[in-house]
Amino acid sequence: METTVPTGTEQLLLELFVIFVTTKMLGEIFERLSLPAVPGEILAGIILGPYALGWIPGSDTLRSVAQIGAIFVLFSAGLETSPRDLIRVSRKALLVSVLGVVVPFVLGFAYMKLRGDTTVEAVFVAAAMVATSIGITARTLADMHVLSTRTARIILGAAVFDDVLGMLVLAVVAGAASGNGVAWLHLSVLTGEAVAFALFMMFIAPRIVRQLRPKMEQMSTQNASLVVALAICLLLSWLAVKIGMAAIVGAFFAGLTFADYAPRWNLIPRVGGITAFLAPFFFFDIGSRFNARVLTGNLLTMAVVISLLAIISKVIGCGLPLLHEGWPMVLRVGIGMMPRGEVALIVALVGVQSKILSQPAYGIVVLMTVATTIIAPPILRYLFRREIKLRPAGNVPAPVRL
Amino acid sequence: METTVPTGTEQLLLELFVIFVTTKMLGEIFERLSLPAVPGEILAGIILGPYALGWIPGSDTLRSVAQIGAIFVLFSAGLETSPRDLIRVSRKALLVSVLGVVVPFVLGFAYMKLRGDTTVEAVFVAAAMVATSIGITARTLADMHVLSTRTARIILGAAVFDDVLGMLVLAVVAGAASGNGVAWLHLSVLTGEAVAFALFMMFIAPRIVRQLRPKMEQMSTQNASLVVALAICLLLSWLAVKIGMAAIVGAFFAGLTFADYAPRWNLIPRVGGITAFLAPFFFFDIGSRFNARVLTGNLLTMAVVISLLAIISKVIGCGLPLLHEGWPMVLRVGIGMMPRGEVALIVALVGVQSKILSQPAYGIVVLMTVATTIIAPPILRYLFRREIKLRPAGNVPAPVRL
Repeated sequence: METTVPTGTEQLLLELFVIFVTTKMLGEIFERLSLPAVPGEILAGIILGPYALGWIPGSDTLRSVAQIGAIFVLFSAGLETSPRDLIRVSRKALLVSVLGVVVPFVLGFAYMKLRGDTTVEAVFVAAAMVATSIGITARTLADMHVLSTRTARIILGAAVFDDVLGMLVLAVVAGAASGNGVAWLHLSVLTGEAVAFALFMMFIAPRIVRQLRPKMEQMSTQNASLVVALAICLLLSWLAVKIGMAAIVGAFFAGLTFADYAPRWNLIPRVGGITAFLAPFFFFDIGSRFNARVLTGNLLTMAVVISLLAIISKVIGCGLPLLHEGWPMVLRVGIGMMPRGEVALIVALVGVQSKILSQPAYGIVVLMTVATTIIAPPILRYLFRREIKLRPAGNVPAPVRL
Repeated sequence: METTVPTGTEQLLLELFVIFVTTKMLGEIFERLSLPAVPGEILAGIILGPYALGWIPGSDTLRSVAQIGAIFVLFSAGLETSPRDLIRVSRKALLVSVLGVVVPFVLGFAYMKLRGDTTVEAVFVAAAMVATSIGITARTLADMHVLSTRTARIILGAAVFDDVLGMLVLAVVAGAASGNGVAWLHLSVLTGEAVAFALFMMFIAPRIVRQLRPKMEQMSTQNASLVVALAICLLLSWLAVKIGMAAIVGAFFAGLTFADYAPRWNLIPRVGGITAFLAPFFFFDIGSRFNARVLTGNLLTMAVVISLLAIISKVIGCGLPLLHEGWPMVLRVGIGMMPRGEVALIVALVGVQSKILSQPAYGIVVLMTVATTIIAPPILRYLFRREIKLRPAGNVPAPVRL
């Protein structure tokens, strides 16, 4: 018989309230200063997190809620992206992602070697610079109501490919770090799985949904369509992690699958409600991981240079295949692909754990992820300043985005 | 610098998926058998929980998600209840709740004494029988689309008073159990706080919202109205716990505060989306706490009798003040007030921890909570069979309830 009462309810509710309110308040202040809300929301995490005020020390529960929040940010973005439109830009997106991985790796590696670093450490720092984390950009594009533009589709498509490449880079460096060498066979299997997953989700899954539609609309459960969509979202998020990809990529695919029926089934406001509730915990969590104090002197210089390289290299790499489309496209896609996140942190952590990466080098990677994450939204907003759709004025409830 | 990566993402996502899908599938099967979904959802927890198949051993995170789910069940119910309508039935609801507390206590105490129990143990079992847990009924009424009936309002109003009384009973027995006697002064303060809270939320808070409305509709944050409503929901849930009440009562009050503006701000589908996602974890959690194996022989008889008394006593107690309104009203309110939940379990747990209540007596209380929780929805459905509004047929998305 269960003999534990849920303890700490009071603590949990207070933390949820404080995080939700400060995140949203700083977001609102940023909006009033004509800045995007996202860096404000991250700032809330930096301020209240364990390394500054320490009001929110963080817990497994909060971190789990943050992860579910990230999943819903991408699920919402997927719901607004038609698979057909994504397929149409897929060749371009593939080129963008490949060069967007190669250029940051080369530049990062070269700089660390020039600073006199060992080759293995330079490889780890460079590897941490390759993978784009699409959550920040997806939310920023959604806030500006430009998710349906071709540029947004190229960014989202490239982010999917980028995740596959990031997974491969992680597998290679982790294999190298383990001392057993790289398991090429295992790696090919992983790649095959990821590619099959992406192809299945883009080409076949939407057809299955079309076939099953009449059945779904007959189910007697309340909100049958929403329930099925949520179940698929959880399933694909898990499956993505299972085959070595990021959970959010699975969630994005799940959204994509239902995108064509999202208006008919009224999914966007309802999923948007969930995202509005859970996403702030994700952005707060990003900020709460940042400790500014360890970065001083020489280390700070290196961190700043690596951050600048991380920014420039994505613009160069992702921009190259788009040069003939003009500068606005180059810059928008490059900056949209700029934020780094979990994959970078995981690469760095594998390095630390296998004693290849020093703690200072780990600090550099963390600063780079926070810097790219905070800088991207305002630049994106500037680059999209002409396309931003103003929210409907007055009392009409605006369509829910995130 | 944060050096832990969120581990167990794969495990968490798999558990969320399995819980969500089995809960919803059993709910769907029950619906097809013309039963309410809730007992099916609870059954999922019994089957997969630690005492049967053991697939979902349970974790702090899952329990926290379940608690947040319960909060949203009541927040949604509050959003559909106008404070004015609740005030109109409040005298009646107060009578219903007082007699609905007194009668179960007397019957439970008498039976346990007749079985030869000690007085203190009899008091604890009796005390566990008094407090209604409104989550189950709120969801069942919402599923039937009868939340706006006068009967539903009496039930919800009585449940609020019932929670105040339940808190007092808990404080009295906990004080008695601590050996320090009952701290009457502290108890009066608690009561005063709870009454002030309830009065403030019903009479004053809705006016404040009316005053602040123009400001809220000017905010530039995406979904300003939803964000404010969610923040208030978290704040009041915390505050309710803080002053000794159940979190879900705070959430219900929060919903009440925004009920008059819920249509204008399009809150119901968006909050309903959150509830649809999180509520299944709450119902699953209820089921997962039940261990059928400890109840055998003599103990099972006692548990069944106590469960029957718990059922009958609420119908008698809650029904008495409504006799002149006819049998349908008596039965509907009595059965609606029947489910017991967290408060009963907490009372029992306090008893176990202070060594007043034996483990078998604890088992009896747990069976009573599960039995009343599973039995109430089908009876309610039968009693409301003429009022149930069928969901809109065909493709039109039904208004989101839970």
